[in-house]
Amino acid sequence: MKVALINKPTLEFVDSAIGKCWGKGSYGADTQKGAERIDRVCNKRKHGSMLRFVHYIFDMQISTSVLLELSRHQAGVDLAMQSTRYTVHNSHLEIDYSGDYDVDIFLDKQAEEARDFIYDHKNLSNDSLKLILPQAYLYNGQVQFNAQSLQHFFAMRAVKGAHPHIRQFAHLLYASLPEDHKFLFDASLFEEQA
Amino acid sequence: MKVALINKPTLEFVDSAIGKCWGKGSYGADTQKGAERIDRVCNKRKHGSMLRFVHYIFDMQISTSVLLELSRHQAGVDLAMQSTRYTVHNSHLEIDYSGDYDVDIFLDKQAEEARDFIYDHKNLSNDSLKLILPQAYLYNGQVQFNAQSLQHFFAMRAVKGAHPHIRQFAHLLYASLPEDHKFLFDASLFEEQA
Amino acid sequence: MKVALINKPTLEFVDSAIGKCWGKGSYGADTQKGAERIDRVCNKRKHGSMLRFVHYIFDMQISTSVLLELSRHQAGVDLAMQSTRYTVHNSHLEIDYSGDYDVDIFLDKQAEEARDFIYDHKNLSNDSLKLILPQAYLYNGQVQFNAQSLQHFFAMRAVKGAHPHIRQFAHLLYASLPEDHKFLFDASLFEEQA
Amino acid sequence: MKVALINKPTLEFVDSAIGKCWGKGSYGADTQKGAERIDRVCNKRKHGSMLRFVHYIFDMQISTSVLLELSRHQAGVDLAMQSTRYTVHNSHLEIDYSGDYDVDIFLDKQAEEARDFIYDHKNLSNDSLKLILPQAYLYNGQVQFNAQSLQHFFAMRAVKGAHPHIRQFAHLLYASLPEDHKFLFDASLFEEQA
Repeated sequence: MKVALINKPTLEFVDSAIGKCWGKGSYGADTQKGAERIDRVCNKRKHGSMLRFVHYIFDMQISTSVLLELSRHQAGVDLAMQSTRYTVHNSHLEIDYSGDYDVDIFLDKQAEEARDFIYDHKNLSNDSLKLILPQAYLYNGQVQFNAQSLQHFFAMRAVKGAHPHIRQFAHLLYASLPEDHKFLFDASLFEEQA
Repeated sequence: MKVALINKPTLEFVDSAIGKCWGKGSYGADTQKGAERIDRVCNKRKHGSMLRFVHYIFDMQISTSVLLELSRHQAGVDLAMQSTRYTVHNSHLEIDYSGDYDVDIFLDKQAEEARDFIYDHKNLSNDSLKLILPQAYLYNGQVQFNAQSLQHFFAMRAVKGAHPHIRQFAHLLYASLPEDHKFLFDASLFEEQA
Repeated sequence: MKVALINKPTLEFVDSAIGKCWGKGSYGADTQKGAERIDRVCNKRKHGSMLRFVHYIFDMQISTSVLLELSRHQAGVDLAMQSTRYTVHNSHLEIDYSGDYDVDIFLDKQAEEARDFIYDHKNLSNDSLKLILPQAYLYNGQVQFNAQSLQHFFAMRAVKGAHPHIRQFAHLLYASLPEDHKFLFDASLFEEQA
Repeated sequence: MKVALINKPTLEFVDSAIGKCWGKGSYGADTQKGAERIDRVCNKRKHGSMLRFVHYIFDMQISTSVLLELSRHQAGVDLAMQSTRYTVHNSHLEIDYSGDYDVDIFLDKQAEEARDFIYDHKNLSNDSLKLILPQAYLYNGQVQFNAQSLQHFFAMRAVKGAHPHIRQFAHLLYASLPEDHKFLFDASLFEEQA
């Protein structure tokens, strides 16, 4: 699993959005006064919709299993995923591991056999071959959250009850964020400890 | 793949919704006058948002591959899917087939080995074991569309360029619809032939 | 302001949706066992997306002011509103009141003048005349929530800090619900008292 | 009515998103090859979801009437509007005009009376006073579209059948766009002429 932030998110338009609502104007997102107003309005007073004016775009490599869970987050989450319909024949068929020794041995064997089968059947279509990919199969992709949907994602998927892989994914997203944006997410990420 | 409509959808509230907008009242969804107004307003004049007042709920069994594509339809599509995190150990591990003889032989062997491995490792968690499930693995689930999102789904997924499985799924959905609702979907389903 | 529930909502497909996820089947939405599972899964364990399988459709008459606030609830809220572009000339120009005596006297005078002006200018278009309608102007319309979006609406708009009119609207919605559905909403409606 | 683009939108992440899907990588959004691929994939082949990776944020001043129509565009449209609940007492109560001489005279008189009434009732709450604002009342606000939702907005609201004000708003949005982004919107803006 890999995650990297690829855009340069700014809180500037969250700041200006809040200023519009109260007729107060922008305070500056990089000032203490501005950051405190964002925290007060969006987090403490729950006007989360203001957080839709900042976007985080990540490059990622995630398993089919994580993709299945990520795809279920609809509002404010946009995906561009490598299509197996175009890429199975050219794929290296990389996989993620469970951490259980026996399962991982099995996954390696399963992936090896799938690679060989694909190599030996150049005439067959990706549309058919994609069915043999395991849920450990790693997809390359790009995901976009706004700050509100990312808060929600953390609150649902960074918790102990979540699948270990999506939980790891959530923590990798958080680690990739600019330091001066993390205050937006601390409460949702560490909610269960509150 | 299996599909069955499980609710009793009514156009009654599409009819009343249209009546509200123009201050004309309901015509009766089961009258010719009512049906013609729905067709005229929602399809010809493109006020598709009125179509959100009718829902279609389907019971289904679909492959991981179809689920991955279906999950990408966000607006107006709601899913409840069997969670592999709770059910791998008790699953019969049923699979879908590609229609290519060689792939299907491989899928059968892959599924047999996975079934045996799961049976032999009762101590391992579903969270780890789910990674070995192939994209041919069949999920039980329930999906809900409104008439607008179903029109969009057909326009995107019933066409020749779509993956054969999701295309088959789209046509099974259409076949399950009440006969007197099909006029809403004929244009979107058969768009490419127009 | 008027509110009336016009459809017959059922929890049957929330029950079956939950059954799908855990591979347990339906318990019956009208059984104690079924209702308790819905409460446990959707409220206590926060799987709110299951609540999208039940819809509430209301007939309503609300002021422009309430409509402006209601329109801001996007996810899971569908509206069909009387179009002033088609109806100003035929409207009785009914208005809502503030409860402040002086404002209400002013509103009555403003409405009377607007009514007279419209009556005296039969040649002018609705598109121009609609600009003179006050935010007290009452729209007829139809709104649809699913149980998840209705919970969210209550949590945001039934609280003390909300505008008195939208708060009243929220409480009218709640009062119109079937008695055996109210357990879904008690926590969100009375959240601030917790 | 006023409109100004306030962010610096880039097609860079639409380009990279498309590259991900086909496993081809980025072409460069500012190269002809990149722009042609965006046009081909997003417009001709209808993969509009890739267009969600670019955002346009506008500062605006729009009438209540336009706001009511704009608010109905839910998917991919985010709003931050000046709250009358906090600002009526401090507002200059600026209004938009219809273009019909008689209506505009009436609007001026109505606004003048409202201004006087508000000035004379400093003790009354904004919550009550806001009800007297006409639909011609101008709100300050900020709106965000992604390229897909903006295409849709143009297709619905830039057409002849739309209210003249929202149509004018659509054309002002278009005029504010960077020149090298306009190719994305020409088809949707001028759809009816095709």
